[in-house]
Parts: sequence; structure tokens; C-alpha cells
Amino acid sequence: MTTRTAYLDHAATTPMRAEAVESMTAHLLDVGNPSSLHASGRKARRVVEESRETIAQAMGCRPSEVVFTSGGTEADNLAVKGIYWARRAVDPARTRILTTAVEHHAVLDPLRWLEEREGAEVELLPVDGEARLDLDALRASIARDPGSVALVSVMWANNEVGTLQPIDQVVAIAAEHGIPVHTDAVQAVGAVPVDFAASGVDALTLTGHKVGGPYGVGALVVRREVGVTPLVHGGGQERDIRSGTIDTPAIAGFAAAVELSVKHQADHAARVSALRDDLVRRVIEVVPDAHVHGAPLDAEGGRLPGNAHLGFPDCEGDSLLMLLDARGIECSTGSACSAGVPQPSHVLLAMGCTAEAARHSLRFSLGHTSTRADVDALVEAIGPVVERARMAKRPA
Amino acid sequence: MTTRTAYLDHAATTPMRAEAVESMTAHLLDVGNPSSLHASGRKARRVVEESRETIAQAMGCRPSEVVFTSGGTEADNLAVKGIYWARRAVDPARTRILTTAVEHHAVLDPLRWLEEREGAEVELLPVDGEARLDLDALRASIARDPGSVALVSVMWANNEVGTLQPIDQVVAIAAEHGIPVHTDAVQAVGAVPVDFAASGVDALTLTGHKVGGPYGVGALVVRREVGVTPLVHGGGQERDIRSGTIDTPAIAGFAAAVELSVKHQADHAARVSALRDDLVRRVIEVVPDAHVHGAPLDAEGGRLPGNAHLGFPDCEGDSLLMLLDARGIECSTGSACSAGVPQPSHVLLAMGCTAEAARHSLRFSLGHTSTRADVDALVEAIGPVVERARMAKRPA
Repeated sequence: MTTRTAYLDHAATTPMRAEAVESMTAHLLDVGNPSSLHASGRKARRVVEESRETIAQAMGCRPSEVVFTSGGTEADNLAVKGIYWARRAVDPARTRILTTAVEHHAVLDPLRWLEEREGAEVELLPVDGEARLDLDALRASIARDPGSVALVSVMWANNEVGTLQPIDQVVAIAAEHGIPVHTDAVQAVGAVPVDFAASGVDALTLTGHKVGGPYGVGALVVRREVGVTPLVHGGGQERDIRSGTIDTPAIAGFAAAVELSVKHQADHAARVSALRDDLVRRVIEVVPDAHVHGAPLDAEGGRLPGNAHLGFPDCEGDSLLMLLDARGIECSTGSACSAGVPQPSHVLLAMGCTAEAARHSLRFSLGHTSTRADVDALVEAIGPVVERARMAKRPA
Repeated sequence: MTTRTAYLDHAATTPMRAEAVESMTAHLLDVGNPSSLHASGRKARRVVEESRETIAQAMGCRPSEVVFTSGGTEADNLAVKGIYWARRAVDPARTRILTTAVEHHAVLDPLRWLEEREGAEVELLPVDGEARLDLDALRASIARDPGSVALVSVMWANNEVGTLQPIDQVVAIAAEHGIPVHTDAVQAVGAVPVDFAASGVDALTLTGHKVGGPYGVGALVVRREVGVTPLVHGGGQERDIRSGTIDTPAIAGFAAAVELSVKHQADHAARVSALRDDLVRRVIEVVPDAHVHGAPLDAEGGRLPGNAHLGFPDCEGDSLLMLLDARGIECSTGSACSAGVPQPSHVLLAMGCTAEAARHSLRFSLGHTSTRADVDALVEAIGPVVERARMAKRPA
């Protein structure tokens, strides 16, 4: 057994790119709060504003549309709570929030809170068997009472099964009624083309540690015309929408990572999707009843290039994960594990999987450091691991 | 003119300690989200939990009481909003929040929001001429209707004039009625002794970049018995009180800085208070009508050791700041500058200063990298700078 680790969990977090480490560490010893007026403060401010311009260039937005946050979860919370509060303040009838049943918890959980405490009515719109939003359901829900919709939030790409949502059409439908659209693009940036202005969305979440930047930093890109009630109040550092001392080094590293990942997106997508296709083909050769969840691999623009989400009938996903881990292969179940109790994934259930099918799944996600050797290691291990997991599930 | 910078603005942010940089950078290239179940995830989790233990040891609390946040502002927001919401949910009569007129904006601004939108009644309790809370006012306010008080929030040390608040007595008064106490100790940790358990407070804010750790990380230390409604919802990573991917490298750097700054607190306080006393004495020699704001320098336990807040009659603080900056001396006005319009400091106004007196002030704050040469540079520059600022204010 080798001690080399095959890291196939880039959707959870991907290693920092060398350029991002360099940009970040170059400023770790700097003195000066970007909000200070003296020379050291102004110097730090320049680093922040240059980083903002770099990100704006890469994301197809204006620098003033970039609001730095502590990461994707905060940006999602800020978007859905902040836009809900601001829209409802203008018109108290705006209480409905339309979203999909397959959003990340960073969107679903704040929405549940708005429902429990802030008078929101949240509609989890259905998805098809590939996790793609049912646009007719969106149209019908809006049409029922357009004036009562505070916002629509639809993720750009699903974090579990990698399905890309029809954002252009979501925007077109919402725009007919002047309803703002937020999208969690945390998994999409650097993996597929994402252009804020061209997309027509009003607010978009991205985060550092999914694009080879640091943890602890992300952004909400948000049009200046969109009202956003702050989540965190204080110095008002970020357009009075977000307060907190600005994290210059992390922002510099974030900007380097966004720039690089967007610049190399097409090559990256081609490379990792080839690896991914190879992974799926060879795993199914070894385990013939394994099957892909989500959009077909060859669906043009239908799926994240690095995502392989596979079902292994008659196995527990958690057993597979641990058995693979023991062999140095790191991946994820699609399921949220809460207090040690494995729950079937809400994404797979929404796609129509049975609870049993939802539990026998694993997500392999490839990224910028993935190699053929990682795939080889998985292919070598998967046969005996599945066999062992099946034995564990059916004790003689 | 020298090109060396005399940085006298450590209260705004203090440079990272070498040990914190080392601890942080040691983990920048690690792979693995601390919430992942595989070996890389578990390894990251160990770093986080060891850091939590280090901080608990230094702060006199239990590891499970440390809730990591993105910094002091988020921790303050979480404390005052979260405890208010949770206390009011138990008893709708609990709508009052008692605080001081000299809190940081990270406390005052969320309180204003709670007042405007969430039915809170915020009382800004008066302070004396040294910015110290009027305990009789606190007693009287609670006595008026103890059952209606959701929480008390009193900072440990003031960020502008360095005054230490009588936290022990605040806790004793609040405890008679079972009212929880939060304290913003951002400026106090590492500067004066701060022991969470011994203090009796229920919640305490600290942050990385004020103790020689990184930006973008802080903590709310909060007793497990205290209900806290989350501010940011999602994965529930931090005791279900705070969500967001855990920032392993920043937390490792934060822990190193907290450990070191607390360990060396007494020596540090002796060294910087001697420098500070020298700074004040020599500045007043040069500018005889300059005067100290806040507690007297020799008041035992009355003032942060590194804080010198001085009034220069007949000057504009902003002019002084810019003139000093041009000579490589970096400090701060006590005032919040909003959209380029200098506002007199709410702290100085609450202490009874006139708007004119509040505007002619500067804060010099010393820290772990401060030296005698920094003080010498200021003493050399202050005479001509004050003269020039006075001429600017009174054009012939």
C-alpha cells in the first residue's frame, strides 16, 4: 500500500495555488489597516483596490460591485437575507423567496431562518432527475403573484452532483417582473465560464478556497442598484453593506487565485473533464452496476468538468468513504453528516433517488492538482472496497 | 527627513508576530477542509482543535466556549444580536439592551439596527470625564425593570482613549438579576490581564489582528449555557452558532498570537507603558498646552498601557495627522471619518468634551514593535507640526 494521498475532494476545498500563496504572504508582514488615513493605511488600501479591480476584470463586473466577505457562506447569507429585508422594506407584500430544492445549506439554512423568524415564505422549486431546475415551475410560481416575490436564488452549479442550472433563463423569467436574482457560483467560478454582467444576475457569490485562494475570504458581487440590508454592522468598510476590518493579505491571495483560475478555465475544464471521464469509465468497468448521478458526462454545458458523482448499489457511502480513506483515497459522500448520523442527501432525494440510493453514493471531485495517478489509485482500489462494503452491509 | 516610518497606530492594527506568520504559513499549503471526514480533513480538524485549546488556555475558558468568527466585528454582531434574539425568544418582555455611550461601532451599529428593526430599546449609559461607565446609572437602569433587560454589553477597554471599564462590577450588578454580560475585549487581550472565567462575563470578543495574529479571524468566547441565535446560517461548523468553512491557517496563526501576547502581557505592558509615559511627557514639554484625554497615566489598572490620547488646542486633528504622516509618523484621530467628512468622536463627546476639543485630538497607540526611536521621531516632529496646524487653522 502506498502512502501517497489521492485527493479527490476539490469541491470541498482545493489546495492554494502557488501564485495565491505568494500574493498573500507578500502582505502578511505589512503594517497598516486599509481604513487608516496614513501612508501605511493608504498602501494597504491600494492593495485591496487593485485586488478588487483584478476580480472585477475576471468576473465581468465593475470593481464597485465587489463586496468582500469572509467567504461563501457569509456572502450567501448576506445576499438572501439582505435582499429579502431590503425588498420587503420597500413593499411589505414581498415575502416570497423562490429557490431550488438542491441549494447549498449556506442558502437553504438562512432561508429557513427567514421563514421561521422574519415572515418569509420560501418555495423550494422542484428539479428533474438530473437536479436541473424545473423552469415551468419557476414561471408558474412567479405568475401566481409576481408582486409578492422578494427574490429568486438559484445556484450556478450544484456542489454535490455538479449540475449547471439554466441561469440565463432564470434571469429572463425573473426580469419580466423586475425580481432580483441571486446565484451561488462558488463551485462554478474557474470551472465553467461565469460572466456577471452577461449573466444578468443581480448578485453572485464566490469564495477563495474553491478557486485556489485562501480560506476566510469571498465576495458578493452585487449590482449597485440592488438594495442589500447589512448582515454585519460596524465600520461600514464595504459599501456600508459589510463591516469588519478588511483582510488585505487574504484579499490579495483571493484576487490572484480568481484571476488565474478564470484565465485558465477553458484549459482546466478540458483537462479535468478528460480525467473525470476516464475515472467514471474505468470505475464502471470494475464495478459494472455503479452509475452516474446528475447530468450525463457528455452533456455540453450541463455539468461541472471535475465532478463525478457515482452510486454504488448495496453499499453505504460512509463505509466506502472510510475504506477508500484507509487506502489514501479522499472523497466525499454527497450526504450531510449531522452529529455523526448520516442523513441522505437532500440533493439526491430532490432528484428522485430513494433514501437507499441516496446513501450509497460518493462524490469524486477533481481540481487543479489532480493527475492521472489519482484516477489510477481510485480504479485500483474501488473493486475490493466495494466488495468489502457490500459484505459489511450484508453480514452472513 | 528620514524615510523610516514611526508606526504609532497599533490600536488600529498591529503587525503580525513572526511566530503567528510561521504557524499560519505552515498550513497554507495543507489540503483538506476541517469538516471533511477523510485523513486530510481530520488532520486540518486537529490543527483547529489544538488552536482552540491554546486559545482557551490563554483566555481562561474551556475550548468548547471558543466560537471562531471572521473577526471582532462579526463576533460583536453575533454577541449582541444573537443573545438579544435568544433572550427575547424565551421572554418577549426582554427588549432592553444596556450599553455605554463609548462602545465601538461594531457594537453600537448592530444595536442601532436592533432598535430600528427588531424592537430593541437601547440605552447608552453615561460615562464620566475619563470615559468610565457610571455604575450607578447601570444599577438604576436595571432596577427600573430588571425583567426587561435582554443583555448588557460593556467594552473591556476603550479603543480611542484606552479607558478600562469596571467589568467585575458590571458583572456583579447584572448577575443579581441573571442578565448576561457581553464585553468587547478586542483592545484588552494581551495588553491587560483578561481571564474569561474569572471575569464572570458570559461572552467576550477578541480578534487576531490586534494581538499580532492575522486579519480575518477572531472569536466569540461564550458560555455554553448562553443561548445565541446565529447570525450566519449554513453548515453549522461552530457549535451551530456560526457557519462557514473553517479557516485553518488563520486560526493557527491566531492561536499562536493569542498565546504569545497573553504569555508576555505583563512585560509588554511594562515596556510600552514606559514608552507611552515618556511620549506623553516629552510631547507636553514641546507643546505645553497639549493634554491627556481619558484616565490619568498613573492610574493603576485604569488605562491601556500603549494608549496616549492627546488634545492639541487650536488644531484640527486631521491636519495634525496628515502633517505627521508627511514626516513618516503614523497615528490616528479619535474621530470616525465618514465619507471624507470629519465627525467629532462620539467617545470624546460622551466624556464631555466640546466638539472643538473632540476635533483637536490624536491617538498614539504603541505595540509590540514600538521603540524609543518611534517616540523620538514624534517628539522631534510634534512642535513644528502643531505650529503649522495652528497657522492652517487661523489664516492671517
